[in-house]
Amino acid sequence: MAYPHCFIRSPANSPAVDYETPQFFWVIQYAAGADRDVVDMVSGNPDWDPPEALREGLREYADGAPESFQYPPSVGLTALRSEIAERRGVDRSRVVVTNGAGEANHLATTGALDRDSGTEIVMTDPVYPYYAGRANLLEADARYVPVADDGQLDPAAVREVASEDTAAIVVNTPNNPTGAVYPRDTIEALAEIAEECDAVLVADEVYDHYDFTGEFESALATDSDHVVAANSFSKSMAITGFRVGYAVFPPEDGPLGEMVERARTRHMLTNVTGSRPAQAAVLRALRETPPEYYERNRQRLRERIDAFTDALDAAGAEYTTPQGSFYVLARFEDFPGTMGNVERLIDEAGVAGMPGEAFGESHADWLRFALVTLRADEAADRLVDFFA
Amino acid sequence: MAYPHCFIRSPANSPAVDYETPQFFWVIQYAAGADRDVVDMVSGNPDWDPPEALREGLREYADGAPESFQYPPSVGLTALRSEIAERRGVDRSRVVVTNGAGEANHLATTGALDRDSGTEIVMTDPVYPYYAGRANLLEADARYVPVADDGQLDPAAVREVASEDTAAIVVNTPNNPTGAVYPRDTIEALAEIAEECDAVLVADEVYDHYDFTGEFESALATDSDHVVAANSFSKSMAITGFRVGYAVFPPEDGPLGEMVERARTRHMLTNVTGSRPAQAAVLRALRETPPEYYERNRQRLRERIDAFTDALDAAGAEYTTPQGSFYVLARFEDFPGTMGNVERLIDEAGVAGMPGEAFGESHADWLRFALVTLRADEAADRLVDFFA
Repeated sequence: MAYPHCFIRSPANSPAVDYETPQFFWVIQYAAGADRDVVDMVSGNPDWDPPEALREGLREYADGAPESFQYPPSVGLTALRSEIAERRGVDRSRVVVTNGAGEANHLATTGALDRDSGTEIVMTDPVYPYYAGRANLLEADARYVPVADDGQLDPAAVREVASEDTAAIVVNTPNNPTGAVYPRDTIEALAEIAEECDAVLVADEVYDHYDFTGEFESALATDSDHVVAANSFSKSMAITGFRVGYAVFPPEDGPLGEMVERARTRHMLTNVTGSRPAQAAVLRALRETPPEYYERNRQRLRERIDAFTDALDAAGAEYTTPQGSFYVLARFEDFPGTMGNVERLIDEAGVAGMPGEAFGESHADWLRFALVTLRADEAADRLVDFFA
Repeated sequence: MAYPHCFIRSPANSPAVDYETPQFFWVIQYAAGADRDVVDMVSGNPDWDPPEALREGLREYADGAPESFQYPPSVGLTALRSEIAERRGVDRSRVVVTNGAGEANHLATTGALDRDSGTEIVMTDPVYPYYAGRANLLEADARYVPVADDGQLDPAAVREVASEDTAAIVVNTPNNPTGAVYPRDTIEALAEIAEECDAVLVADEVYDHYDFTGEFESALATDSDHVVAANSFSKSMAITGFRVGYAVFPPEDGPLGEMVERARTRHMLTNVTGSRPAQAAVLRALRETPPEYYERNRQRLRERIDAFTDALDAAGAEYTTPQGSFYVLARFEDFPGTMGNVERLIDEAGVAGMPGEAFGESHADWLRFALVTLRADEAADRLVDFFA
């Protein structure tokens, strides 16, 4: 499969756009320029409040002594790494605090390629566009495994594609854009395939706090020593702009033990370290935020999903009911997920979604709607009016 | 010249250290474990207060609406880029806000190599260890040009080493560790050499606010279209932990016009974006901090330099009087800049400096002392007692 047109190239029949407007941004810009009110269901930014302890943490930090404004350790504040390690049940030496899950995924993928145990990266189709863009940047060979309509990934299909040329298998669970949560069997099987191919299973688990099924299993639960788990506080604390994430690398005494040291080196030579006010605020929020905060946000999303999928029923659409994450994929009759149709929906219905084709080929007929807006109900009504 | 032993390898005759303790950290650890009081003259962290407007900016940010906690544009807050562009007299499209000068230098150097116009990186000796480590990470061929004892760089010596195989010439002015500020003629000549070799002059100017001579010239003043200027607010605002820096790339309509778009892509796929609370606080500080703040810190350093170099005179040492930056290089008779001598100075004099050999070969006889401590006077007295 060809590299999805998520980055750099302009959408078809649209004026040329520069890099600052890849497809996500293009749709947002198009919606902003529309001659009517439009509900934004494109962005993956939570629309609710961060934990109060996070705000408190920033205020406390602002009053600190000069030395607290200076470099934290390159791998992150020690207390923050300890909190993470304890929660994840791993040795602190395996944890590198990164500039969001973006850098965590980047370190995991570059680290997998640096092992010289393969040049291929196996991803799903649909794919989160950054994974595809990164494979391209790193000049890796991208292989895509189509998922089922409900978003589930068949390990047998991955096994067919994976080989000794595979450096990494990159998955995202709970998934963007399908909303699928992979069951334990799938994760176990993927880790096994990684072991068989001497590859790395990179599991991006940033939506782990938005699992509506209770079925979510972290790749760390497999106890495989061929797994890197990438995560962040961007989604769980509603702070995508803070850029505090982390990666958990394989144990240092295992066969992939060298990965964490190489990641530390690359992190140090790329970023030196992450931003300390953000790390300090996240540390306080991690310690003080009660489970109710997270449950409240899950409940909010459950209600939005119910209302939105009821509307999709009324509009006669097929759809995925997300098991996790923020997104609903919908397929309307004779209305494939092209950029042209996305523009039409903006202009004629006042709803902005993402074209399925931006995520690959397997879901090119679908549209993705992000439920992180107070106006999801309004958008649902508009879709019913347009399609029913 | 061989790759300086700044990263990864353990210092000679010291117990094995992991990556978290390269030489800077090794010395700090050794000093912390010493059986006596030690003045830290190793760290490059300012010891004075950040601007009050920076603290105010963080407090204001902490009270913001949920949407202000979400992703800023990948290339940085637009208002921050505008402020930077205006101050630097460049078009905003050339500015990418980065995770500190570390990432700015990284994007500049990778971008130079990605042009496929050479595989060599020309650096000075002594070199700031991150440049050498990065060349190693990127598998570039490192070439070093020794500077004079006073830290000045002779462009003729660079011209001898540079060739069509040169991808980048990486310099730092005002310089760490020599304290040299390159005059306009030097910068102009370096830009010319970069043009002749179809290479990129990467000028790291993070100490630009600590120029004591008035002779500092930014590489941007050359108007060469083969220049990338890297900078940050880490040193000027005493916030090395915030990670707000930037790079100014060549104009998009010039021969290296593609560099900025490639840097945006790499930045997005590595980091997504920088930390927003830090950017917001820097923006407010940039707007509201009066020139007196910066002048006060320069004056503080001037006084420390005077007192410290007076003591070095009394101790019978040779030294560099810094024209800029925070550092004094000193050479004591029969006391070369080895790790062994650094340890001896910690144990016997109670002063921790950096071994000159950590920066290369040309200044291996020297020791580097950072003047960002309230206790510089005390350290000076101890050095006099030890050496006089």
